[in-house]
Amino acid sequence: MSSAASNNRRPGPGRPRHIPASDTHADPRDQILAVSARLFVGQGYAGTSTRDIAEAVGIRQASLYYHFAGKPGILAELLEMTVRPALDRVGDLARIESPEAALYLLAFHDAESLATLMHNIGMLPACPDVSQTPEAREYAAARGQLREAYGSLGISCGSQAVTDTVAMLQLGELILNAVESVIGTRASGDTVTNKELHGVAVSSLRICGVPQAQIEVAAKVAVAAVGQMWLCQPDLGPR
Amino acid sequence: MSSAASNNRRPGPGRPRHIPASDTHADPRDQILAVSARLFVGQGYAGTSTRDIAEAVGIRQASLYYHFAGKPGILAELLEMTVRPALDRVGDLARIESPEAALYLLAFHDAESLATLMHNIGMLPACPDVSQTPEAREYAAARGQLREAYGSLGISCGSQAVTDTVAMLQLGELILNAVESVIGTRASGDTVTNKELHGVAVSSLRICGVPQAQIEVAAKVAVAAVGQMWLCQPDLGPR
Repeated sequence: MSSAASNNRRPGPGRPRHIPASDTHADPRDQILAVSARLFVGQGYAGTSTRDIAEAVGIRQASLYYHFAGKPGILAELLEMTVRPALDRVGDLARIESPEAALYLLAFHDAESLATLMHNIGMLPACPDVSQTPEAREYAAARGQLREAYGSLGISCGSQAVTDTVAMLQLGELILNAVESVIGTRASGDTVTNKELHGVAVSSLRICGVPQAQIEVAAKVAVAAVGQMWLCQPDLGPR
Repeated sequence: MSSAASNNRRPGPGRPRHIPASDTHADPRDQILAVSARLFVGQGYAGTSTRDIAEAVGIRQASLYYHFAGKPGILAELLEMTVRPALDRVGDLARIESPEAALYLLAFHDAESLATLMHNIGMLPACPDVSQTPEAREYAAARGQLREAYGSLGISCGSQAVTDTVAMLQLGELILNAVESVIGTRASGDTVTNKELHGVAVSSLRICGVPQAQIEVAAKVAVAAVGQMWLCQPDLGPR
């Protein structure tokens, strides 16, 4: 009986839980991540305590530790979210014969992922209080893998003139910075449009010196390939 | 007599001042900036007090306030240092007829400035505890001017295909991100070579779709122009 009552959606008697209305039906783990993301970006990682997080979610600190190994565990998961979607796709890209189309796809989806991550958490790794943590070192290693993937794809696309002027890792860094430019766009208050995601993907090919005609072919091959590779076809290309 | 004694370089009796050996002959204002840069980047802006700064410099807090309007005044000056050298050069560039050479020069010198700034302070603006300050809003306005200068130069260089895919401000953001890639390179512990600065400048032209042959001409025009424009000719081009 009392169990049935607690499943009832109407609030029961007693102290109300401090759950924001929009998060009421979310998984507690996801609620903790979302609230932490907001607080870390808003007031800094060092400036946020597990108590702040627990209070904002409306749970006890003990419940927070049931889901995460404290603040570092939450940070690790948030940082991972900024690189994992792209890294997971690198393997799939081997199935695409054109390195230009593969680079277009990776850059587009990586930028899209950063453009839609809650509270623009792509900003976190650059903060000193974050960048000196062991979790940030793990993140840096994962970002390094991604940079290498971009650099290696970029070298496959690049002409001799490009490889003469830019080494593989610098090329990877330049492409990754083009992708991460959406973080800055969001930070300055603008939303990132689909046309801009296309602009990022196309620019990553330009950085590799791919001529315009080939860029247009690559974008078309990418749109055709994506339907076969991933279950849900994203809205690619300019609108 | 006592004044002559205090001018003597040999340490007198009494409590020694906590000045790091390397900074002993620096201007107090510069010492405060250098120490603050190290502390802000190392332990965060919010995590550093004016007391920490004064102690690390080896002066009293009152002396610090003689030179700066507190921590915000120091932050404002450090943030300014990350954009001012490039903004100051934008005006000079009007004298260069080739927009490609002008963009090469601006990107090269901006990247060089970020690559040599003490303690990689280019990292500061991205931190939440910094980005929410009034000083960061002033910085954002200055960076916005720089982005516009890059975007406008980029549009002058870009082909129709480029302007069809990337709007002026996004182009500026992409070029600025290529320039700022040296901040990430330094953050991961690598020094930025002259060849990499050339790589950044060349990549900024590639982002605008400038063909390779024109890029090579632009780099040569830039090297020739710089000697006439600025007193000290930097070491341009690949080694």
